Amino acid sequence: MSCDFLSLARPGVQKLSPYVPGKPVEELAREFGLRPQDIVKLASNENPLGPSPAVREAIAGAFAELTRYPDGNGFALKQALAAKLGVDTAGITLGNGSNDILELVTRAFVGPEHEVVFSDHAFAVYPIVTQAVGAKAVSVPAKDWGHDLDAMAAAITPATRVVFIANPNNPTGTWIERPALEAFLDRVPENVIVVLDEAYTEYVETDDVPNGVDYLPRYPNLLVSRTFSKAYGLAALRVGYGLSSPVIADALNRVRQPFNVNSLALAAALAALQDEAYLIESRRINRQGMQQLEDGCAALGLSWIPSRGNFLAIDLGREAAPVFQALLREGVIVRPVANYGMPNHLRVTIGLPEENQRFLDALKQVLSRG
Amino acid sequence: MSCDFLSLARPGVQKLSPYVPGKPVEELAREFGLRPQDIVKLASNENPLGPSPAVREAIAGAFAELTRYPDGNGFALKQALAAKLGVDTAGITLGNGSNDILELVTRAFVGPEHEVVFSDHAFAVYPIVTQAVGAKAVSVPAKDWGHDLDAMAAAITPATRVVFIANPNNPTGTWIERPALEAFLDRVPENVIVVLDEAYTEYVETDDVPNGVDYLPRYPNLLVSRTFSKAYGLAALRVGYGLSSPVIADALNRVRQPFNVNSLALAAALAALQDEAYLIESRRINRQGMQQLEDGCAALGLSWIPSRGNFLAIDLGREAAPVFQALLREGVIVRPVANYGMPNHLRVTIGLPEENQRFLDALKQVLSRG
Repeated sequence: MSCDFLSLARPGVQKLSPYVPGKPVEELAREFGLRPQDIVKLASNENPLGPSPAVREAIAGAFAELTRYPDGNGFALKQALAAKLGVDTAGITLGNGSNDILELVTRAFVGPEHEVVFSDHAFAVYPIVTQAVGAKAVSVPAKDWGHDLDAMAAAITPATRVVFIANPNNPTGTWIERPALEAFLDRVPENVIVVLDEAYTEYVETDDVPNGVDYLPRYPNLLVSRTFSKAYGLAALRVGYGLSSPVIADALNRVRQPFNVNSLALAAALAALQDEAYLIESRRINRQGMQQLEDGCAALGLSWIPSRGNFLAIDLGREAAPVFQALLREGVIVRPVANYGMPNHLRVTIGLPEENQRFLDALKQVLSRG
Repeated sequence: MSCDFLSLARPGVQKLSPYVPGKPVEELAREFGLRPQDIVKLASNENPLGPSPAVREAIAGAFAELTRYPDGNGFALKQALAAKLGVDTAGITLGNGSNDILELVTRAFVGPEHEVVFSDHAFAVYPIVTQAVGAKAVSVPAKDWGHDLDAMAAAITPATRVVFIANPNNPTGTWIERPALEAFLDRVPENVIVVLDEAYTEYVETDDVPNGVDYLPRYPNLLVSRTFSKAYGLAALRVGYGLSSPVIADALNRVRQPFNVNSLALAAALAALQDEAYLIESRRINRQGMQQLEDGCAALGLSWIPSRGNFLAIDLGREAAPVFQALLREGVIVRPVANYGMPNHLRVTIGLPEENQRFLDALKQVLSRG
């Protein structure tokens, strides 16, 4: 009779449900006997443009060093980020995706005696990294699907160590405007770390949504997290970064694995950062596709949550799970969000025009079956 | 006046000194004004052969999917590992290097109320991942520079949750033979997880050193960790894996970041696993280079710790730090190991014949200066 090792795991780990990713194309192909090339995946907020040639070239250029350990300090990438963003390298923490940054924050600063505040319908990784360290998750009811910053500020107690805010938020696409963020930051006690998750910030094209970097000098308890997985098109490579005061970065870097970002990822991110044309085209495709999806939903009599991301949460007005399943059979993968407390919504990533059309056509057909 | 955020960090994190990697070639070139091509790096136990063509090809073949998230379950690599090693995929945990696996173990199972046992002069990551979760590190005196398994078994208390063993050990190169390991595993209580770190196992060419996989069926508390960073030549890409009972793997996978291993790393590891010729050549170069270094040390009147790894810990019979510095000026990077309690040793990675000779010549010159 063997020992029950799960009962030996940390209390938070015993109850932990891991993150559920979007269904991979290969997996759907295996399950339903479909050809991968016939499948459209709009499930993971990936960049539909495909890889940038500059990135391919940078990766090929790093081949010779495959047997060497990565530069654990990410010297070149940090220099480039610092120059581009006007920050000091001492405040930069590189992550294996921004997921790594979010996790480093709770591992460095949060214990079982603490509380972590975030919003209902916010990114699923916030409760996971909270529970993994055994802390109490405080999920605050949303307002119009978005963050209710007044309620979040009111939810802060002496036990609160971290507040997570996503701007824009995934999976709702909702955003926070400048005055609301400023009022919130002014209210948060200085010993509470505010993590402003800006994974989708590169898709924002209007002035009303704040750029977290502008607030770093004024709020030493602010950490801005960003990623190369979305508008920069490097989801496969796992590169994210945190921007903060050097003392917070120091704590995160102590917990960080010495080689958390791999060499090809470092080289690719450096090239992507300098590839302004790719970013501009990504935004154009996104703007156009957002309009296409909104028009298509309106034509089907469906409503949606207005979004500043590269995705749209569509309200089906009925349970979305069977529609998700029916779409899979049509070779279209989108994202069910019942686990976000949104059982009637589907989150659809903005794709290329023909991908968006495939989705709209399939949705029309599935809904017409009643 | 700003808040002291380091005082808000977890108690273990406040005292944590991060892992110190081998000095990168680029860094030495910047510091001393040397040309990178004139520098020999024998500091990080990297494979001197350079990348395998099969790996290059596999990476190029994965380019098209750079904008997609990795397969978080590592389906193809796990299938290949399971087939090769004769294990079930349910017992495999993939890691961002085996560093990730070592860290997942303490994060999933160890808290401030626990003790973690390892040997003096063992891999530096064991105390780091212990301290990061606030547990008590119990370092057991070594015997002839190697693990004293009797003393380690005796150091286990009711508070012990994990024991780390490295076979062969880094930085000493020492190894544990079959009967000693078996006697140890028989003595360890079933609720204590034994992590058998086999990062260098592919370099072992004799039958007396056990293969941890053979012991998995008999000891459900055993976890074997391995890496693609050494004999497989993929240090840049960060791929390691843990082999254990499915229930331990389940706990590790709950804490694991959903996309901890990136797509190019998954593709490269799959190709490397099938590239038997590269492994055979890596072993040949290592065997030959080990002989060359031992002969060279003997000629200089130096002794060393017999090693089954791809490196040699050389006893200078005097403080090694000034010799390390003098070698840097000669463009030769090796590894000082004073932080391992070995102030008189230098750890030298086995390189190509001409690299080994560069090191021996430089060492002779530096020592002759007295």
